[in-house]
Amino acid sequence: MLDKTNTTSQRDILIVPEILKEDLAKVETIIRERSDSELVERINQVLLHIFGSGGKRFRPLLTLSAARLLGYEGDHHLNLAAAVEFVHTATLVHDDVVDQSKQRRGKPAANYLWDDKTSVLVGDYLFARSFQLMVSADSLRSLAVLSDASATIAEAEVLQLVNQNNSSISVDTYLTIIQGKTAALFSAATAVGGIVGKGTNQQIRGLTEFGNYLGIGFQIMDDLLDYEGHSPELGKNVGDDFKEGKVTLPVIRAIEQADEKETAFWKRVFEDNNIMDGDLERALMILKKRGIIEEVRSQAFSWSEKAKNCLEKLPDNHIASFLGNLADNSVARKS
Amino acid sequence: MLDKTNTTSQRDILIVPEILKEDLAKVETIIRERSDSELVERINQVLLHIFGSGGKRFRPLLTLSAARLLGYEGDHHLNLAAAVEFVHTATLVHDDVVDQSKQRRGKPAANYLWDDKTSVLVGDYLFARSFQLMVSADSLRSLAVLSDASATIAEAEVLQLVNQNNSSISVDTYLTIIQGKTAALFSAATAVGGIVGKGTNQQIRGLTEFGNYLGIGFQIMDDLLDYEGHSPELGKNVGDDFKEGKVTLPVIRAIEQADEKETAFWKRVFEDNNIMDGDLERALMILKKRGIIEEVRSQAFSWSEKAKNCLEKLPDNHIASFLGNLADNSVARKS
Repeated sequence: MLDKTNTTSQRDILIVPEILKEDLAKVETIIRERSDSELVERINQVLLHIFGSGGKRFRPLLTLSAARLLGYEGDHHLNLAAAVEFVHTATLVHDDVVDQSKQRRGKPAANYLWDDKTSVLVGDYLFARSFQLMVSADSLRSLAVLSDASATIAEAEVLQLVNQNNSSISVDTYLTIIQGKTAALFSAATAVGGIVGKGTNQQIRGLTEFGNYLGIGFQIMDDLLDYEGHSPELGKNVGDDFKEGKVTLPVIRAIEQADEKETAFWKRVFEDNNIMDGDLERALMILKKRGIIEEVRSQAFSWSEKAKNCLEKLPDNHIASFLGNLADNSVARKS
Repeated sequence: MLDKTNTTSQRDILIVPEILKEDLAKVETIIRERSDSELVERINQVLLHIFGSGGKRFRPLLTLSAARLLGYEGDHHLNLAAAVEFVHTATLVHDDVVDQSKQRRGKPAANYLWDDKTSVLVGDYLFARSFQLMVSADSLRSLAVLSDASATIAEAEVLQLVNQNNSSISVDTYLTIIQGKTAALFSAATAVGGIVGKGTNQQIRGLTEFGNYLGIGFQIMDDLLDYEGHSPELGKNVGDDFKEGKVTLPVIRAIEQADEKETAFWKRVFEDNNIMDGDLERALMILKKRGIIEEVRSQAFSWSEKAKNCLEKLPDNHIASFLGNLADNSVARKS
C-alpha cells in the first residue's frame, strides 16, 4: 500500500517521452482547428472555455502511446487521438447537464456559464466532429471500435442514471457502469492506436485489455478521490457524488458492512436524498473507521497491476515503460 | 398556387413503389434490432415510445429511393437508411430538451415522460448507434457525408438558439439555419443512397442537390404549418414557434412589411417575450392580411420545383417519378 509521500513521488516521476510530447502538441492544434465553427461564434466561445480549461489529455496520450509503441511513423494516430478527446469532451459536456454541475476542471461548467441547451448542442457538435476526424484517419476498423465505445458509454450513463439513489446497487452493477462510462473509451483509445499502428491481433487485444483495466482502476480512484481528494487539485468539490446520490464503490462497501445505525444513515442520504449538515464528514468517518479508503485504493491498484501485465504481450521499449508508469500514476494521483 | 382540395388530392396520390415498401419494412426491423439495449431497460422503454410514435420515415425513404433509382441490388442501403433515421431521431430527442417540448408526433415527448437527463443520454446512444450502422454499411465515403451532416445540424441548431427572440433575423440567416438543421440531412440521405448505389459523381451531385432543395422546401412548409396547420394532424400545437420565440420565414416577412403598430407587436412578442391572450390570432390575421401565407407557400413550392429539376440528371424510371411526387407532397402536406 502506498502512503502519501510515495504517491506524490510516483506522480512526479511520470516523464512523458519527447516523441509523445511532440505528438500531443500536434493533437492540440488539431483539436483547435477541427473544433472551430466558421458559422457560429457561440460554439467557439464555449469550446475555447472547455478546451482552454486544460484537462489531462489522458485518453489521446493512450492512442499516441499505443501507436508509437508499435513503431508507427504516420500521422493518422494524431487524428484518432483528437477524435478520442472529442468523444470524451462531448460526454463531459453532456454529463455536466445531466448532473447539473457547476464546476469542471476548477472552472465554471459550460452549462452553468451558458445554459443546458447550449451544452446539449455543443456536445452533439463535438460528437459529430469526432466522427469527422475518425473518417480522416481512414480506418473503418477504428471507426467500428470508437462507435462501439460511444454506444457503450451512453448505455452505461443511462444505467448510472437509473441507479442514482439506489443504495442497494451491487459491486457488479457498479463495475458494469464504470467499465462502460470510463474504461470503454480508455480501451478504445489504446485499441485504435494499435489498429493504426498495424499491430497484430494479439497486440491489439493486449492494448485493448490494457486500456480497459487501466480505465477501471482510474475510475475507482476517481470515485475514491471524491471522498478523500482535495478540491483545488481535483478541480471539483469533494463530495459531489455524495450530494448527487451517486452510489460508488466506497459507499457500496460501506453499506455492505453497515450496522443498523449506519444502514439508516446511508438510506437517508442516498434513498431519501435527505442530506444534513455534517453528513459528508460522517460518511468519511465511517469509510475511514472501516478501512474502506485503503481497501478501495488497493482495489484500484490491483486493476492497474492487471493493466501492466498486459504490456508483456507488447514490444518492450521506452513507450511501454511509459505506459507502465502511466498505469501506476493513474491510481497514485491525487487529482 | 394550390388550393386545399388540390393539396389533399396530391397528398393522397403519393404511392410508394412496392420495392421501397419492402425496403422500409426491413429498415423498421433494423431500427428495432439495432436500437435495442441488452443492458438497460430504460433505453428500450424510451426508444419503444419514440419509434412506436410513428414518424414519416421520410429520410430513410430518401436513402432507399436514391439507391434503388440507380438500380442498387445489395442491402447496405438498408443500414444507411436506418442510420439516417437514428441521426434524425437523436436530434429530435435533443431538440425536445432544448425546446422543452411537451409533445412530439401527437404523443408526450420523451423528456416530458421521463426527464431531460434521460433524453440527453438516449439521444447520445442513438447517435452512437447510427455510426455503428454506418460502419456496417462499409462505406467511408458515406460516413464522411453523414458525419459532415451531423456537424452541420448541430452548428445550425446553435445558430437557431442564439437567434431565438431575435426579431431582426434576416432571410439569409433563416435559410442558413434551415439548410443546416433540415436540408443537410435530407441531402446526406439522398447522397449516401447514391454512393452506395455506385452512382457517377454527377448523379451523386444531382441526388445531393435534390435532397438539399427538398429539405429547404420541406422546412419552409413546416414553419408555415406552425401558423396555419391543424394540431391533430401536425402532432404538435399550432403556434409552438411563436411561443418559443423562434422567428421563422412567415414572421420575418411580416416584420419586413410591418407598419409602426405591427412592429411594436412583433417586438413585444419576440424580443420582450411578452405574449398575451389573442396574440397568436393577431399574428395569423396579419399574415393573412398581408398575403404572407400564400407567399411563403409559394416559396416552398419553388424549392420543391428546384428539387424536381435535379432529377433530370438521373435515370428516368418509376423511382424517379416517385421522388418527383415526394417533392410535390413535401410541400403540399398539411402535417
